[in-house]
Amino acid sequence: MNVEFINPFLQSLLNVISTMASMQLNPGKPKLKTDNLAKGDVSGLIGMVGPQTRGSMSITFEQGLILEIMQNMLGENPGTINDEVTDLVGEITNMVTGGAKNLLGEKGYNFEMATPMVVAGLGHRISHKADGKKIIMPFTSPHGTAYIEICFEN
Amino acid sequence: MNVEFINPFLQSLLNVISTMASMQLNPGKPKLKTDNLAKGDVSGLIGMVGPQTRGSMSITFEQGLILEIMQNMLGENPGTINDEVTDLVGEITNMVTGGAKNLLGEKGYNFEMATPMVVAGLGHRISHKADGKKIIMPFTSPHGTAYIEICFEN
Repeated sequence: MNVEFINPFLQSLLNVISTMASMQLNPGKPKLKTDNLAKGDVSGLIGMVGPQTRGSMSITFEQGLILEIMQNMLGENPGTINDEVTDLVGEITNMVTGGAKNLLGEKGYNFEMATPMVVAGLGHRISHKADGKKIIMPFTSPHGTAYIEICFEN
Repeated sequence: MNVEFINPFLQSLLNVISTMASMQLNPGKPKLKTDNLAKGDVSGLIGMVGPQTRGSMSITFEQGLILEIMQNMLGENPGTINDEVTDLVGEITNMVTGGAKNLLGEKGYNFEMATPMVVAGLGHRISHKADGKKIIMPFTSPHGTAYIEICFEN
């Protein structure tokens, strides 16, 4: 898995949050994940299957950040992670993956998306179990941190 | 989504746990999921993509049950959900989905599996966000409960 495969996901997350929530996330340094560094309170997860490879992606939000995104997008803040928040995280996961799929399709990498799942639970950790390198990248904001993690089979 | 699509996953989970951990889970009643009933401590999640449909599946374990399964399979019980336990849950998720894929392939339903992800966090909840019916089924044991959840797009 090379950087050409990763950047479209990172760019797509920045685009989605900027467009839909008028919020600028600050991208940190992408790095190889060697342990379970990302902890968060709500995560969107999705599987991907293509002719060349298959893999998985997750986006994990701290509660304060996703509630601020919800406030900016929908004008309401439920104060806790309810079904509306998990629906929003599912939508964001779909949009980010769809955006990356388009960018990668232009470069000749094609994959199909499975349907997203959302996990809610304070301080959970996610492990991607594909047999390939795992890339994790933090995005910071005054309201909290988000992490995107991607893993494709070699 | 019909029962023909669901049963192979349920059967496959019973087979995997029986074969690998010499443990009999007691299948409960499958039901349509209308809210987030399944709570657990460690979950394996996987996406699926086929020509007719796409969807997602998760298997959620209570801590006591997965540690007992680990004890039976590997002769060791770490007492907490560590990386070895999440690896095991990833393997179980792969095996259950692979078993169901074979059974469904014989009936003419084909799909490709993405790679599994594992979530660890006490008392987390999972929502499948595909636009289709969600089926949840509990499996009980003296050591705790497991839940399998499946959702395919209509």
